Amino acid sequence: MKPAQLSALFARVRTNHPLVHHITNYVTVNDCANITICAGGAPVMADAIEEAAEMVTYAGSLVLNIGTPGKAQIQSMIAAGRKANERKIPVVLDPVGAGATRFRTESARRLLDELEITILKGNAGEIGVLAGAEAEVRGVDFKALAGDPVTMARDFAASAGITVVVSGPTDIVTNGSRVLLVENGHPMMGSISGTGCMAASVTGVFAAESGDPVPAAAAALAAFGIAGERAAAGARGPYSFRCALFDELAALTPEHLASAARIRQV
Amino acid sequence: MKPAQLSALFARVRTNHPLVHHITNYVTVNDCANITICAGGAPVMADAIEEAAEMVTYAGSLVLNIGTPGKAQIQSMIAAGRKANERKIPVVLDPVGAGATRFRTESARRLLDELEITILKGNAGEIGVLAGAEAEVRGVDFKALAGDPVTMARDFAASAGITVVVSGPTDIVTNGSRVLLVENGHPMMGSISGTGCMAASVTGVFAAESGDPVPAAAAALAAFGIAGERAAAGARGPYSFRCALFDELAALTPEHLASAARIRQV
Amino acid sequence: MKPAQLSALFARVRTNHPLVHHITNYVTVNDCANITICAGGAPVMADAIEEAAEMVTYAGSLVLNIGTPGKAQIQSMIAAGRKANERKIPVVLDPVGAGATRFRTESARRLLDELEITILKGNAGEIGVLAGAEAEVRGVDFKALAGDPVTMARDFAASAGITVVVSGPTDIVTNGSRVLLVENGHPMMGSISGTGCMAASVTGVFAAESGDPVPAAAAALAAFGIAGERAAAGARGPYSFRCALFDELAALTPEHLASAARIRQV
Repeated sequence: MKPAQLSALFARVRTNHPLVHHITNYVTVNDCANITICAGGAPVMADAIEEAAEMVTYAGSLVLNIGTPGKAQIQSMIAAGRKANERKIPVVLDPVGAGATRFRTESARRLLDELEITILKGNAGEIGVLAGAEAEVRGVDFKALAGDPVTMARDFAASAGITVVVSGPTDIVTNGSRVLLVENGHPMMGSISGTGCMAASVTGVFAAESGDPVPAAAAALAAFGIAGERAAAGARGPYSFRCALFDELAALTPEHLASAARIRQV
Repeated sequence: MKPAQLSALFARVRTNHPLVHHITNYVTVNDCANITICAGGAPVMADAIEEAAEMVTYAGSLVLNIGTPGKAQIQSMIAAGRKANERKIPVVLDPVGAGATRFRTESARRLLDELEITILKGNAGEIGVLAGAEAEVRGVDFKALAGDPVTMARDFAASAGITVVVSGPTDIVTNGSRVLLVENGHPMMGSISGTGCMAASVTGVFAAESGDPVPAAAAALAAFGIAGERAAAGARGPYSFRCALFDELAALTPEHLASAARIRQV
Repeated sequence: MKPAQLSALFARVRTNHPLVHHITNYVTVNDCANITICAGGAPVMADAIEEAAEMVTYAGSLVLNIGTPGKAQIQSMIAAGRKANERKIPVVLDPVGAGATRFRTESARRLLDELEITILKGNAGEIGVLAGAEAEVRGVDFKALAGDPVTMARDFAASAGITVVVSGPTDIVTNGSRVLLVENGHPMMGSISGTGCMAASVTGVFAAESGDPVPAAAAALAAFGIAGERAAAGARGPYSFRCALFDELAALTPEHLASAARIRQV
C-alpha cells in the first residue's frame, strides 16, 4: 500500500467517525467499544433480535464476534448480517474459538454460509479449521497449523470469495489474488485478553470508509500494531500496556500511520 | 445549590455507602460498578427475574439502563422498578439510544409508563425523542435537537411529573418548576465509552441519600464533572483519562465538591 | 507451606499455562480473563449449554461464579461441572451474593449438591449462609457473621468433604483437617469491584497444577495478595491500584512468591 493511500484512508476515518455496529462477546465488549472510539469510529452494541437489524441501518460496518456465542445471539447476527448485505455494508466476522467446540465451528460456518462476509479475521487455527485444514485446538488459544498459512489463506479466500485475515506475528490479508503482509505489532499484544477482538473492531472502523477490504484490513492492522509497538515502549506490565494501547491508537495520526506501517505485498 | 447543602449530601453518601442496584448493559457494567464505589456507594447487579425485585429490598436506589436491552431484561426492570416504587426507593432511568430503534424507544416509554421514574437522564436526543420532540438519531450517538433544550426538559418534566436530566456540555436538571444548570465536566468525557452510564450510576448514589431528586442529580453531575476536569489535567490520552476519572472521583471530598461545583439556578 | 513447595507450584503454573474455563458474571468477566493471564493461566469463557461441557475437556480447571446468575447459566454450570467431575478436573465455586436473594442461595446450594465442588471460595457471609450459620446480608456485600470463622469453615469443609476458602483480611483455607491462614493482601483490594472474582480465577489457575486443593488455594491467595500489597505502594487511587494489581501479579516470580507469602498453619 502506498503511504498516501494509507494516510488518506485514516484521515477519512478520523473525519467521518463511522458507526460500527457490534454483536460481540461479553468478555471484551468494553475494550471493543473503547478501541473503536480510539481508532476514530463510534461503537454501538445491540444484540436483541428486536433491534439488531434495525441498528445496522445507521452503521458503516458490522462486526460479528462469536467469543461467547449463544443460540439467540447467532440468530441476531444472521438478521443483522442480512440487513448489512442488503445495504452493502461491510461485515467483519471474528470466529473466536472456531474448532474448539462443535457449536463454535458450526456457528462460524453458518454465518459464512448464510451471510456475505466481507472480512473473516481469525488466528491460524481458527481460519485453518474453517478452511478445512488440520489445526491443533486448545480452548480459544490455537496453535499454528501445518502447512503454509499464506497459501491456506489465499486458497480459502479465493474459494469463499471473501477477504481473509490471519492474525499472527505477521498478519496475512488476502482476497485470493492480492496478498498483503502486515508486520506491525508487539508480542505484548498476546499478553492481554481482547487484542484479537479489538483488531476486528478496528478493522470494522477502517472497512466502513473503504470500498476495498484488503487495504482496509491491512491499514487497520498496521494502525493497531503501531499502537501496540508504542504502548510497549513504556509499559510496566501487561495492564499498563493495555491502557497505553488505547491512548496510542487515539494519538496516532494519518501521517504517523503512513510512515510507520510495515505492509508489503507478496 | 448552597455549598453547605452539597457538602452535607456528599458527606452522607460517603458515610452511608448506599447500595445501588443496577439493571444495566453488558458494555459498561464494570465501569458502573467501579464508579459507584468511587462515588461512595456499593454496587449490585442482578437482572434475573428470579431475584431482580428481591435485590431491590436492600437498595438505596435502582438504576435502569437500556444500553443493551432484551425482552427478559425489560421484564426484570419492570419487576424491580415496581418493588422500588412500593418501597419508595428512587429509580433512575437512562434511556440509552431511545430513538435509535423502535425497540429502544418503546422500551423506554414502557418503563416510563409502567413505573414511577424518579430521574430520567439522557442526552438531548434521547430525552427529546421521549418528550416527543424531533431529534436526529444516529446509533446511540444523538445530535442536538431543534429548539431550546431547557424549555423542552422543563415542559417534559412538568407533564410527566418526574425529574429530567439532559446531559451535555451544560447539564440541565429540572423537575418542571426548578431548573439547575451544571457546568462542570470536560470534553474528554466524550472521548471514552461509558461516561453517560457512569453519570447515571453516580446519580443513583446521590439520589439514595437525598429526598429531593433535583439537588441530588445536580450534585452527582457536578461531582462526576469535577472528577473529569481533574482527570483531564494529567491525561496522556482517552484511556489514561478514563483511569484517572475513577481515581479523581474517589479522591473528591465533600469540601472540594462544594467549592468546585458550578451549579446555577435559572 | 514450605517456600520450595510454593515456588515449585508457581513455576509449574508459569510453564504450563493451564486453561481455566469460566462460567461467570458479566460484571467482572474481563478482569477474570486478564487476571488469569497475569497469574500464568489461559482463560476461556463459554456458557452456552451447547458448548459449556465440551469446552471443559480442554481445561485444567473450571471456575463457576454466580455474580449475575440466570436459570440457563446455572444449567450450563451443572453440565460443565459434571463433565469436570467425570474428568477429575478441579472445580472452584464462588457463590457471589449467596444469602442476598433466595435465587442465589438456592443456586449455590444446588451447585454444591449436584456437583463435586473442589474449592468453595466466598466471604464470611456467603460461606456462613451456605454452612447454615447466621449471617447479615446486604446486597452482595456481607458483614462478618457471629462465631469463629475458622471453626465454621473447618466444620463445613469436613461435613461437605470439600476445601473451603473464607476470604477476608486473613484468608482461611481448610479441607476440614488442615487449616492454612493467608495474611497477604491490602485493604485497597476492597476498594474496587471484582477482587473476589479475580481471587477465584487465580485459585482456578493454581488448582489446575496441584493435586491438593489446600496448598493450591493458599498459594493463589498469597500470590494475589502480594500483588495487591505491591500495587498499593504506588497507587494514586483505586483505579490506578486496580491497573497495577494486574501488572504486579504478572511480574511476580516463583521466588518472590516463596519469600513474600505469609501462610501459616493452625
